[in-house]
Amino acid sequence: MTPAFTHSMRVPFADTDLAGIVHFANFFRYMENAEHAFFRSLGYSIHPSGSGATGLAAYEGYGWPRVSATCEYKKPLRFEQEVCVEVHVLDRQAKTIDYGFHFLVEPHDGPVAVGKMTVICVRFDEEAKRMRAVDMPEAIRSKLDSVS
Amino acid sequence: MTPAFTHSMRVPFADTDLAGIVHFANFFRYMENAEHAFFRSLGYSIHPSGSGATGLAAYEGYGWPRVSATCEYKKPLRFEQEVCVEVHVLDRQAKTIDYGFHFLVEPHDGPVAVGKMTVICVRFDEEAKRMRAVDMPEAIRSKLDSVS
Amino acid sequence: MTPAFTHSMRVPFADTDLAGIVHFANFFRYMENAEHAFFRSLGYSIHPSGSGATGLAAYEGYGWPRVSATCEYKKPLRFEQEVCVEVHVLDRQAKTIDYGFHFLVEPHDGPVAVGKMTVICVRFDEEAKRMRAVDMPEAIRSKLDSVS
Amino acid sequence: MTPAFTHSMRVPFADTDLAGIVHFANFFRYMENAEHAFFRSLGYSIHPSGSGATGLAAYEGYGWPRVSATCEYKKPLRFEQEVCVEVHVLDRQAKTIDYGFHFLVEPHDGPVAVGKMTVICVRFDEEAKRMRAVDMPEAIRSKLDSVS
Repeated sequence: MTPAFTHSMRVPFADTDLAGIVHFANFFRYMENAEHAFFRSLGYSIHPSGSGATGLAAYEGYGWPRVSATCEYKKPLRFEQEVCVEVHVLDRQAKTIDYGFHFLVEPHDGPVAVGKMTVICVRFDEEAKRMRAVDMPEAIRSKLDSVS
Repeated sequence: MTPAFTHSMRVPFADTDLAGIVHFANFFRYMENAEHAFFRSLGYSIHPSGSGATGLAAYEGYGWPRVSATCEYKKPLRFEQEVCVEVHVLDRQAKTIDYGFHFLVEPHDGPVAVGKMTVICVRFDEEAKRMRAVDMPEAIRSKLDSVS
Repeated sequence: MTPAFTHSMRVPFADTDLAGIVHFANFFRYMENAEHAFFRSLGYSIHPSGSGATGLAAYEGYGWPRVSATCEYKKPLRFEQEVCVEVHVLDRQAKTIDYGFHFLVEPHDGPVAVGKMTVICVRFDEEAKRMRAVDMPEAIRSKLDSVS
Repeated sequence: MTPAFTHSMRVPFADTDLAGIVHFANFFRYMENAEHAFFRSLGYSIHPSGSGATGLAAYEGYGWPRVSATCEYKKPLRFEQEVCVEVHVLDRQAKTIDYGFHFLVEPHDGPVAVGKMTVICVRFDEEAKRMRAVDMPEAIRSKLDSVS
């Protein structure tokens, strides 16, 4: 399956633990970084506060909280390794996106880790004074569908 | 279901993000902290390097890497909230433990998040010069079974 | 010198790095956690968003950003060690507080690390639409002076 | 003053806090990342465990712990901003390096933050069974002197 996007990174020292490998919680930060880089590649910042810094479009008052996140760990990931994080759009509903992530290091015979993340589009509801799930903007939906 | 152990904590400022709530990756650190506190309550440090600090027993050369981890996010968790992390032993095999975690804040009508984590007992294999999965020590197994 | 406050903590696994010791950046999170626990001991949350969780007082629109932070590392700090973080108020001006932190582990012949942090009281200026430095509230100032 | 090296990065979402800006402790991770990228630019991995991943040279048994670290915060740094981290070698002694770091974002009229870090070359002493300060390897010293 061709990924919708590929994000490259190098493992920082601070992300390792005393077992000598990347601490497992950091894979979730890596997934999010890849998701946000993917959004930038579509012309959007994931959050209005990022659009000023990037010159990208954003929807005021919208956010993309996580509904669930999971990761399977296959092999250790180590300090200074270069990682390709493949971003796959597994499913796209009106309000939610199911992402899949493959973590690859060279030479590889399969990913070091495989992750999933479901995110939901929310918007601040002025009456209810809280965030609530809404259909994602049409422009984002069509961009997503064009690459996945 | 009665938890095998309950770990209390307070949300640090650094764990929040610009959405004003706890960043989702931190729930995995919280699960691990609760797991390690659970092991201490059984008389063990999860890692030999911790046993000196705690005066607890540990098995030299043993480790407990994560096979998989998952979290479902139900409600936001916020700065300075006190959290009870319930630790459940969902399943105990010869080599693996399946943990369940419920994150509760007062007043509650259900957890703010629910997590799972599968860990596997490994030991350094002197011949192969690498970690390999092994049956967990009998003493740990019986302690686990006595509380779950 | 008697500390104004002492905060106890235990080193989490995730805070170590592949050198087998606490990663140096984490001492700054520990200083902040101790500072916020100190504020709670005075009856205040450091941030309005924390007051709901703690039932403590807070000043709407006020914040305490860091002006500078420094740490000297004397000895390694390790997984599961219990740490006493002594909080000292080195100086208190109208707008700023200079904190000193001593990190102690038992048995000790001196701190494992010594830190400093200068924080400044700011308030959102409705006209300028940005934060600006202001004199700290009288109630906080008098509480601080009573313990240091 | 011309920097010895410049490291570019983009602010990840997870590094912000509920004040909407980069949490102050993260600047220390950024300094370290820039230091390690600087070492790679000289042909070295900062740690033997990184040399396999990078194909760079490294000295088995050597390490570079931090003696002290400090940061002055001038302006907020925000989500998705691109940062140039300038690395300056302020002083180079037989065993230690004093680094200076300037954090720049465009358009700039001065750095958003200025940091310093003193690191010391250590080597595992087989007799004493612990790390001890040693003169840094000649090859590293001459590389450092050639760029600063």
